[in-house]
Amino acid sequence: MEYSEERIKSMIRDVKDYPKQGILFKDITPVLKDSAAFSSVIEELARRLSGTDFDYVIGIEARGFIIGSALAYRLGKGFIPIRKKGKLPYKTIGIEYALEYGSAAIEMHSDAIAKGSTVVIVDDLLATGGTASAAAELVRRSGGIVKVIAFLIELEFLNGRDKIKDTEILSLIKY
Amino acid sequence: MEYSEERIKSMIRDVKDYPKQGILFKDITPVLKDSAAFSSVIEELARRLSGTDFDYVIGIEARGFIIGSALAYRLGKGFIPIRKKGKLPYKTIGIEYALEYGSAAIEMHSDAIAKGSTVVIVDDLLATGGTASAAAELVRRSGGIVKVIAFLIELEFLNGRDKIKDTEILSLIKY
Repeated sequence: MEYSEERIKSMIRDVKDYPKQGILFKDITPVLKDSAAFSSVIEELARRLSGTDFDYVIGIEARGFIIGSALAYRLGKGFIPIRKKGKLPYKTIGIEYALEYGSAAIEMHSDAIAKGSTVVIVDDLLATGGTASAAAELVRRSGGIVKVIAFLIELEFLNGRDKIKDTEILSLIKY
Repeated sequence: MEYSEERIKSMIRDVKDYPKQGILFKDITPVLKDSAAFSSVIEELARRLSGTDFDYVIGIEARGFIIGSALAYRLGKGFIPIRKKGKLPYKTIGIEYALEYGSAAIEMHSDAIAKGSTVVIVDDLLATGGTASAAAELVRRSGGIVKVIAFLIELEFLNGRDKIKDTEILSLIKY
């Protein structure tokens, strides 16, 4: 199946008040479940990254694992997870970042990226950009170079791009 | 690269006392990071499933997402996530199961599987089998049929297979 933004958009399910009151959540599970749609999304991300030379795909827990892993396999790249604090077994480097209320922390294995390695970071959705910019900073602190941050969905009205400076952003579905 | 159990085994890292004292954790991140190793693992799982006719790959959060998603893409199947309680946005069915101390709960979207659908469940590691047998039960309660439960690693000395009855188990790396 050829990729179509409209077709994928029509399969994304709006869930009201998840994870909290007032949020309209974009549920991508109907897209993942449809083999043709899932495949077309991975193919389209691969196509748009075909001009980018890089070493690793980094997936952000947990939905970023689903998109990132299939993409890494498709492109013949290795996969590196960025996880929530305490979830990686070996030595880690971490970063804390502000949320609307409170804060969150993500970690990467401290030996995951050799100095000068190039990466594409993958997550399912760009909202305010807090997680993605923290992930990019984590890669930079490890000596890595972020070539592109790729998303399935971008909520443009939240201006997450403004938070992620000097890095190429790729997103397939825009709201 | 052709798949080799010995080669993959040599890349799996033992981490002592994670997630708690006395556990020797099998860290697969060095395998995922190596593009040739990662690819060979997905190819080998695909090869061993080539005789199995089924509809969906189900990945168990979170490392099961990494293996399951790439495998689903490779086989041209849709991907369905089973997640920890509270992590799926839409209506869910859940199941609680006993751990060594206390209990855990996993969920699946209640509309994820139509009656009679066939699935392969994927996780990274078979230990005591608690999570995998709960996942299989969740699929059955939704009217689905579990064809195979596939793991990258099986800790044979924990006898997890005994807990998962009447279901074909596939594992690549055995300890």
